[in-house]
Amino acid sequence: MSDIRTENDSLGAVEVPAEALYGAQTTRAVANFPISGLKANHFLIRALAMIKFAAAEANAELGLITPEQGSAIAQAAQEVLDGKHHDHFVVDVFQAGAGVSLHMNTNEVLANRANQIFGEELGSYKKVHPNDHVNYGQSTNDVFPTAMRLSALLALEELYSVLEGLAGSFAAKADEFKDILKAGRTHMQDAVPITLGQEFAAYAVAVREASASIRRNAVTLHSLGLGGSAVGTGLNTHPQYREKAVAKLARIARLELHPAYDLRYAMQSCAPMAEVSGALRTLALEMIRISNDLRLLSSGPNTGFNEILLPSLQPGSSIMPGKVNPVLAELTAMVAFQVIGNDTATAMAVQAGQLELNVMMPAMAHATLQSITILTNTLRELEVHCIRGITANRERNAFYASSTIALATALNPYIGYRKAAELVKESVASGRSIVDLAREKKLLSEEQIAEILDPKNMTEPHARIS
Amino acid sequence: MSDIRTENDSLGAVEVPAEALYGAQTTRAVANFPISGLKANHFLIRALAMIKFAAAEANAELGLITPEQGSAIAQAAQEVLDGKHHDHFVVDVFQAGAGVSLHMNTNEVLANRANQIFGEELGSYKKVHPNDHVNYGQSTNDVFPTAMRLSALLALEELYSVLEGLAGSFAAKADEFKDILKAGRTHMQDAVPITLGQEFAAYAVAVREASASIRRNAVTLHSLGLGGSAVGTGLNTHPQYREKAVAKLARIARLELHPAYDLRYAMQSCAPMAEVSGALRTLALEMIRISNDLRLLSSGPNTGFNEILLPSLQPGSSIMPGKVNPVLAELTAMVAFQVIGNDTATAMAVQAGQLELNVMMPAMAHATLQSITILTNTLRELEVHCIRGITANRERNAFYASSTIALATALNPYIGYRKAAELVKESVASGRSIVDLAREKKLLSEEQIAEILDPKNMTEPHARIS
Amino acid sequence: MSDIRTENDSLGAVEVPAEALYGAQTTRAVANFPISGLKANHFLIRALAMIKFAAAEANAELGLITPEQGSAIAQAAQEVLDGKHHDHFVVDVFQAGAGVSLHMNTNEVLANRANQIFGEELGSYKKVHPNDHVNYGQSTNDVFPTAMRLSALLALEELYSVLEGLAGSFAAKADEFKDILKAGRTHMQDAVPITLGQEFAAYAVAVREASASIRRNAVTLHSLGLGGSAVGTGLNTHPQYREKAVAKLARIARLELHPAYDLRYAMQSCAPMAEVSGALRTLALEMIRISNDLRLLSSGPNTGFNEILLPSLQPGSSIMPGKVNPVLAELTAMVAFQVIGNDTATAMAVQAGQLELNVMMPAMAHATLQSITILTNTLRELEVHCIRGITANRERNAFYASSTIALATALNPYIGYRKAAELVKESVASGRSIVDLAREKKLLSEEQIAEILDPKNMTEPHARIS
Amino acid sequence: MSDIRTENDSLGAVEVPAEALYGAQTTRAVANFPISGLKANHFLIRALAMIKFAAAEANAELGLITPEQGSAIAQAAQEVLDGKHHDHFVVDVFQAGAGVSLHMNTNEVLANRANQIFGEELGSYKKVHPNDHVNYGQSTNDVFPTAMRLSALLALEELYSVLEGLAGSFAAKADEFKDILKAGRTHMQDAVPITLGQEFAAYAVAVREASASIRRNAVTLHSLGLGGSAVGTGLNTHPQYREKAVAKLARIARLELHPAYDLRYAMQSCAPMAEVSGALRTLALEMIRISNDLRLLSSGPNTGFNEILLPSLQPGSSIMPGKVNPVLAELTAMVAFQVIGNDTATAMAVQAGQLELNVMMPAMAHATLQSITILTNTLRELEVHCIRGITANRERNAFYASSTIALATALNPYIGYRKAAELVKESVASGRSIVDLAREKKLLSEEQIAEILDPKNMTEPHARIS
Repeated sequence: MSDIRTENDSLGAVEVPAEALYGAQTTRAVANFPISGLKANHFLIRALAMIKFAAAEANAELGLITPEQGSAIAQAAQEVLDGKHHDHFVVDVFQAGAGVSLHMNTNEVLANRANQIFGEELGSYKKVHPNDHVNYGQSTNDVFPTAMRLSALLALEELYSVLEGLAGSFAAKADEFKDILKAGRTHMQDAVPITLGQEFAAYAVAVREASASIRRNAVTLHSLGLGGSAVGTGLNTHPQYREKAVAKLARIARLELHPAYDLRYAMQSCAPMAEVSGALRTLALEMIRISNDLRLLSSGPNTGFNEILLPSLQPGSSIMPGKVNPVLAELTAMVAFQVIGNDTATAMAVQAGQLELNVMMPAMAHATLQSITILTNTLRELEVHCIRGITANRERNAFYASSTIALATALNPYIGYRKAAELVKESVASGRSIVDLAREKKLLSEEQIAEILDPKNMTEPHARIS
Repeated sequence: MSDIRTENDSLGAVEVPAEALYGAQTTRAVANFPISGLKANHFLIRALAMIKFAAAEANAELGLITPEQGSAIAQAAQEVLDGKHHDHFVVDVFQAGAGVSLHMNTNEVLANRANQIFGEELGSYKKVHPNDHVNYGQSTNDVFPTAMRLSALLALEELYSVLEGLAGSFAAKADEFKDILKAGRTHMQDAVPITLGQEFAAYAVAVREASASIRRNAVTLHSLGLGGSAVGTGLNTHPQYREKAVAKLARIARLELHPAYDLRYAMQSCAPMAEVSGALRTLALEMIRISNDLRLLSSGPNTGFNEILLPSLQPGSSIMPGKVNPVLAELTAMVAFQVIGNDTATAMAVQAGQLELNVMMPAMAHATLQSITILTNTLRELEVHCIRGITANRERNAFYASSTIALATALNPYIGYRKAAELVKESVASGRSIVDLAREKKLLSEEQIAEILDPKNMTEPHARIS
Repeated sequence: MSDIRTENDSLGAVEVPAEALYGAQTTRAVANFPISGLKANHFLIRALAMIKFAAAEANAELGLITPEQGSAIAQAAQEVLDGKHHDHFVVDVFQAGAGVSLHMNTNEVLANRANQIFGEELGSYKKVHPNDHVNYGQSTNDVFPTAMRLSALLALEELYSVLEGLAGSFAAKADEFKDILKAGRTHMQDAVPITLGQEFAAYAVAVREASASIRRNAVTLHSLGLGGSAVGTGLNTHPQYREKAVAKLARIARLELHPAYDLRYAMQSCAPMAEVSGALRTLALEMIRISNDLRLLSSGPNTGFNEILLPSLQPGSSIMPGKVNPVLAELTAMVAFQVIGNDTATAMAVQAGQLELNVMMPAMAHATLQSITILTNTLRELEVHCIRGITANRERNAFYASSTIALATALNPYIGYRKAAELVKESVASGRSIVDLAREKKLLSEEQIAEILDPKNMTEPHARIS
Repeated sequence: MSDIRTENDSLGAVEVPAEALYGAQTTRAVANFPISGLKANHFLIRALAMIKFAAAEANAELGLITPEQGSAIAQAAQEVLDGKHHDHFVVDVFQAGAGVSLHMNTNEVLANRANQIFGEELGSYKKVHPNDHVNYGQSTNDVFPTAMRLSALLALEELYSVLEGLAGSFAAKADEFKDILKAGRTHMQDAVPITLGQEFAAYAVAVREASASIRRNAVTLHSLGLGGSAVGTGLNTHPQYREKAVAKLARIARLELHPAYDLRYAMQSCAPMAEVSGALRTLALEMIRISNDLRLLSSGPNTGFNEILLPSLQPGSSIMPGKVNPVLAELTAMVAFQVIGNDTATAMAVQAGQLELNVMMPAMAHATLQSITILTNTLRELEVHCIRGITANRERNAFYASSTIALATALNPYIGYRKAAELVKESVASGRSIVDLAREKKLLSEEQIAEILDPKNMTEPHARIS
C-alpha cells in the first residue's frame, strides 16, 4: 500500500501523504513556504474550526448544504476543537497572502475528515468538498479576518487571568510592605520618603490599568466580517447567513460577538489588530519599567541598593560563584522587547492593506498571538516564582529614609525653598544630617522638628503645622 | 538703562534679559539646552497655565498663600491663556528631565507677571515667589504629568473635529458614488464586483473607528496626579488640596477631569501617553492605507487604474509638463510616517521610567503633541482640498466591473468551484468573456446568466436562484 | 533502573532525566522558562560548541586543564558540530539574562559527554566539570557575546549566497527584458518611457547593494571579546589565553576573527548586533518595495497593470475560481515586516545594557538569527519560484510606452515647459495623442517628431537635436 | 505700489508677495501645506543650491543655456550658500511628494534672483526661467535624491567632529580614573573588580565605534543619481552632463562624490537614507546606555551608588531644595528616543517607494536631518558641560571594590567553583568578608590571599599562582 495519494486541483496533480487529512492545496503550500518551521498558533486553529462549525450549521439550516454534510463538517470541527487533529495543520506561519493556505488547510482537513465520517476515502471529496461545502459562501477574505480576531480574543482570556494574579500579588506585597519607610528617588537622586508598600501598590495599579487598556482595545475584535465572502459584499451568501453564522459562532466560542456594521471595512481594515497589539505594547512598556525597578531595588547585595531580595531560582553565573541574578525580571524585559518588536511587525502589516483586502494578515496574526502567548507564560512565572517571594530589607530601607537629603523639602513651607536649599548644600558638604543642622540653626522648634522632619509624616498630605 | 538684570538662584548669579518675564532658572535652561530650536507646543503652555491658575485658587482658599497672591497668580495665568506671554516660554522642547525647565519657566513667568501686577520689579519676587507661592505644594513631578495629559486632551479636541469632517466627506462621496459599479481587487488581482460607493463608505467608517479608538485610549488622560507633589505622597500639600485643585482645573479647562486613584502610579507611569500615542498610530496606519488606495485608484491618466480623479492643486513636476500629482495623499502618508516615528519615540520614553518618576516626559510630550498637530492640519487639508473634490471615471469603472475574471465566482453554487476555475482559465487564455463562455457551454439558462452574472447583483447577498 | 538521576548545584538537589547530557542548571532553566517553546537556533549552538572547543585547546596548551580533559571536551564539541546532540540543547530562547542558561546547557552537555568518553557516569562530573574545566577562564559574559556574534556570521554566509542568486536572477530578467519599452511612473502617474529591463536591472542593483550593506555592518561582528571572562578584565584567564583562543576559534569557524581592542567595550556594548540588524532591516525595506512593485506590475489580469506575469504556484482563493495570487511576493513582504519587528526588538535589547554587561543578549540573538533564517528561506523561494519564471506582456508595455502623457517632456528643450504643459492639457481633455497634437500644431518638423518623440530614444541621454 | 504681484503657472494665476524671490509654485505650496511650521533644514537648502550651481555650470559649458544665464544662476546659488536668502525658502517640511515644492522653491528663488542680476523684475522670468533654465535637464526626481544625500553628508561633518570630542573627553576621564578600583556589576549584582578608568575607556571606544559605523553607513550617500532626470534614464540631459555636473558638485561641496552606477536604482531606492539613519540609531542606542550608566553611577548622594559626581548645571527640582539632577544625561536619552523615532519614520518612508520613484523623500530628509542636528547639539553639550567635569568618589569606589561578594571568583582555579560558592553563601549570611573566611578556613596561604584576593590584581589577566 502506497504512502502517498494523488490529488488534483486547478493547477494539476499533487502527491499528498496517504494518511494526511489535508489535501492538494495544503501540500502545495508546505512546498511553497519552507520558511520558519513555525506552525499556526493553536488558538488560530481553534478559531478557524469554530467558524467552519458555525458556517456549516448556518448553511445547512438555510438549505445550501445538506443536513448530513452539515453534521459531518460540524463533527469534524468539534474534533479539532477537542485537539485531535492539530498535527494536520502543517502550513508555516509565513505563507500565502491573506492566509489562503491555512484556510485551505482547514477546509481540506474538515472535508477529508467529514468524508471519513461518511465512510469515503481521504482525498475523494465525494460527499464533502473543501470549497463547495466546507467553504460554502465563504472566502479566505471574510474567514481569516474573523479567525484572527476570534483567536486573539480566545488567547487574551488567559492573559487577563494571569494579569489579575500578578496585580494581586503586587497588592499583597504592598500590604506586607506598607510600614516600610524608604527614600523615594526621582532622577535617580535622593527624593522625599515614601513607603515600599506605596511603590508596590502602584505596580499593582499599573498591571490592572494595562489589563484594562487591553480590554478597551480588544473591543473592536468582537465585531466580525463573517458573511462578507470575497470582497465584503456577501456574494454567494444567503441574506440570512451573516447574522445566523455569527450568532452560532458566539455560542460556540462563548464570547460576545456581533456582525460588523460595514463588511467592506471589516475586510479592508485590520485596525483592530493594531489596537490590541498597541495595548499589548503598553503592557510590555510597563513591565519593562517595573522589572527594571525590581532589578534596581534588588541590586547588590554589597554594591547596590539592596532594598529588596528576589527569590533565588538558579545559580547566576558560570564563573562567579554564589551569584544569584534576577532572572525572571530579566526574562520579563526580554519578552517585552519581542512584544514591542512584534507590535512593529503588526503595525507594518496593518498599514499595508490595499483596496478590498489586507493580505498581510498571517504576519500580524502570528506576531500578535505570539506576543499574547509569551506575555502570558512569562508573567505567570514572574508572579509565581518572583513577586510572591520578594522580601524586604527593612534596615536598609530605614537607613535611606532617614538619610535622603530631600528631607529638607518638608521645611519649604516654614523657611522657604531658598533657605532650605542652603541647608541641603551644607549637609552635603559637611556630611551632617538635615535634622542636626535644622536643630543647630534653630530654624524650628523641637516639636516642629519631630513632627515635620519625621519621614513617616512625609508619606501623606498634612495640614500646615503652626 | 541696562538690558539685563541679575538674578540669583541656589547655584549663583544669572544674567537675565531685563524685560523677560522669565528668570534665572529659565535662563540657565536656555543656555543648557540649545538643541532643536523648537519651543513648547501652545497646548502645553496653556495646560501649565491652567494648572497654576487652579493651584493658586486652591492654595489661597486653604490659606496657604494670601488671597492677593492667589489673585495675582490667577490673573497672570489668565493672561497666558489669552495668549499674551507665549514668547516668554523660551525653553527648548529637549530639555531637563521631567520638564523641570519648562515648569520653572512657567513659575517664573507667572511670578514676575504677578509681581508686576503688584507694582514690583521684574526679578524681585518680593510679593510672589516662583517656588514658594506659584509652586506652593507642587512639584514638577505632579505638575508636568498633569500638564502633559491635559495638553493632549486639549489638542485632541481639534483633531476629533477634523476627523468628523473627514469621515463626513468620505460618506458624502460614498453616497455620490453608490451606483458606480467597479471591480473589486484582492491581492491586486481581479476580484468580484463592488461599488465605488461601498469603498468610500468603508473609508468613512475607518476614519470614524480610528477617531473612536483615540477617544477610548484618551480616557486615562482624564485621571490626574496633581496633588502628589514630589513623589506622589502629597508632601507639603493640604489634605483638601488635591480634590479642590483638580475640580478647579476641570472647570477652567472645561473638561471632565478627576484625581488619580493612586498618586504614585500617576507619577511613575506614563502608560496613558503610550495609549493615546498608540491610537494616533492606528489612525496613521489607516490613513496610509487609504491614501495609498487613493493614489492607486487615481493612477494614470493613461497608464494606471484611472478610476477616480483627485483635484489638481499644483503642477506636479519640474520637468514633466502637465503632470499633476496626488500631493495631499502623499502628504498624508508622509505625516503618518512621522506620527509612527513619534509613537516609537513616545514608547521608548514611556518604558524608561525609574522608581518614583519618569523623567522622559518632555520627549513624549513633544512627540505626541506634534503628532496631534500635524495630523490635524494634514487631515483638514486632505478633506477640504482633496476628498471633497474627487470625481469618478464612470466608464472606466464600468469596464472593469464587466471584465474582471472573478465574475465566475457567482457560478460556484451552480457548477462548483472546480468547473468555474476551468472556465476562468479558458477565459484568460482565449480572451473571451466569462459570460460568453458560460452561454456557449450552456452551463446556465439565459435567465440565470442575466441574473447571476450581472455585476450589480454581486454587490450584496442573494438567495440562491433556482 | 530509574529514568531520573539526581544532581546537586549550589542551590540544592535537582532531578535530571537519566539519559540527558545536560545537568542540574539546564533542568532548572527548563523549569524556570516555559515561555515560547522555541529552542536555540542551530547556528548559536554551533558557535557555542566552537568556542568551547577553542577554549579547551587553549587551556590545555596553557596547562590549565589536562591534555586529556582538553581532548575529551574537544571531541564532545566536535560531536555537537557534527549535529549529534542538538536535542540536548533544551532551554527556551527566552531565558535567563545574558544567556546563562544556554551557556550552562552547553557546559553541561560537553562535560557529561566528556565524562562518558572517560567512561564515567552522566552527572558524575568526575573527570570533567562544567564550571571548572569546560568553562575554565570563561564566563557567560564573554562567551555569549562571542557566540552571538559568531552565530550571526555563520548564518549570514547562507544569506549572502541567496542574495547573490536573487540579484543574478533579476539581472538575467533585465537582460531578457532590455528591449521592452514601457511607461515609467512617478507618483503613480504617467511618466516618461523606460524599459522593463532597466527596472529589473535596478532591482538587481538594489539586492546587491543591500547585501553589501549587510557585509559592511557585519564587520564589527568579527571582533570578539572572548577572554574577558566576568567583566572584561580577563580575571582567571592566562595572559596568552585570549589571543590563543580566538586564533583557534578562527581556524575552527573558518572565518576571519580577531580579539576585541577593548574587552570591556566588547562586553558592555551590543552595538554590533544593532548594526547588523539594521542592515537586515534595510534589506527588508528594499524587498518590501520590490515585492510591492512586482505585485503592482502583475496586477490584473483584466483590471490592473498586467505588464508582467508571475508564475502560478497555487490556487489563489478559496472562493474565486481561477484566481492566482502573487504569493511569494506577498510572503516576502510579510517576512520583511517580521524582520523589521525583530529589528525593533533587537534595538530595544541593545540599548538596555547596564554597566559591565548587557543581559538582554538572548532576546537580540533570537530576533536577529530568526530574521536571517526567514530572509534566507524566503528569498531563496522568491528567486527560484517567482523571479526566474516572470514573463513580460510585451503588448501591454508597448501600449503604455506610446500613450503616457509624459511623452511631452521631450519637447521641453524645443518649445519650453510652459507650452508643453498646455499640449498635455489639451491631450488629456481631447484624448488625442501628444504626437498628433505636436504634428498638427507644427511645433516640430516631422524629422524632429520622429526622433524626439520616439519613446525608445527617451530611455537614455541624447545631445540636443537641431 | 502693490505688495503683491501676480504670476501664472499651468494651473492659472497666483498672487505672490511682491518682494518674494520665490514665485507661483512656492506660493501654491505654502497654501497647500500649512502643516508643521517647520522649514527646510539649512543643510538641505545648501545642498540644493550647490546642485543648481553645478548644473548651471555644466549646462552652460554644454551650450544648453547661455553663459550669461549660467553665471547669473551660479551667482544666485552662491548667495544662497552665503546664507543670504534662506528666508525665501518657505515651504513646510511636510509638503508635496518627492519634494517638488521645495525644489520649485529653489528654482524660483534662483530664477528670480538671476533675473534681478540681469536687471529684470521679480516674477518676469524674462532672462532666466525656473523650469527651462535653472532646471534645465533636471527633475525633482534626480535633484531631490541628490540633495537629500548631499545634505546628510554636510550635516554629518559636524556630528563627526562632536563625536571625536566626546570620545576624547571620555578617554581623558579614563586616564584620570585609571587607578580607581571599584566593583564591577553584572545583572545589577556584585561582580568582580574593575577600574573606573576601564569603564570610561570603554565609553570612549563606544563613541568612536558608533562614529565609525555612521561613516561606514554613509558611504553610499556619496553615489549620486544627478543626471537621471525624470525616471533615471537621463531624458533631456546631454550625454556628458551627468559626469560633468557631479564633478562640479564635488568641487563645490568639497566632498568625494561620484555618479551612481545605476541611475534607475539611485532614483527608486532610498536605501542609503535607511542605512545612515540606522547608524544614527546605533549611536542613539549607545548613548542611551551610556547616559543611563552615568545616571546610575551618580545616583545618590545618600541613597544611591554615588561613585561619580556630575557637574551641577541648574537647580533640579521646583520643590526639593538643593536637588541637582543629571540633566544632560537625561537630555541625551530623550534626544536619543526622538532619533530612534525618526529612524522609524525614515524606514517607513524608505519602504514606500513605488516603481521609478520614492515620493516620500521629504519625510525621510526631515527626520534624518533633524536627528543629525539634535544629536550634534546634544552631544556637544554633554561633552563640554557634563563629561569634562565628572569627578570620582574615590572612597566609595574603594569600598565597593573590597566588599563585592564576587571577590570569591578569584578562588575558582584554586578551590573550584563549588567550594567558592559555599564561601559566598556564608559571607552573605554572616556578613563576614570573603578574605576573612578564606583566611579562617585556611583555604590559601597568606601570600596567596594577598596576591589572589587583591582587587587590583583582578583587573587584568594573570598566570596562575602556585
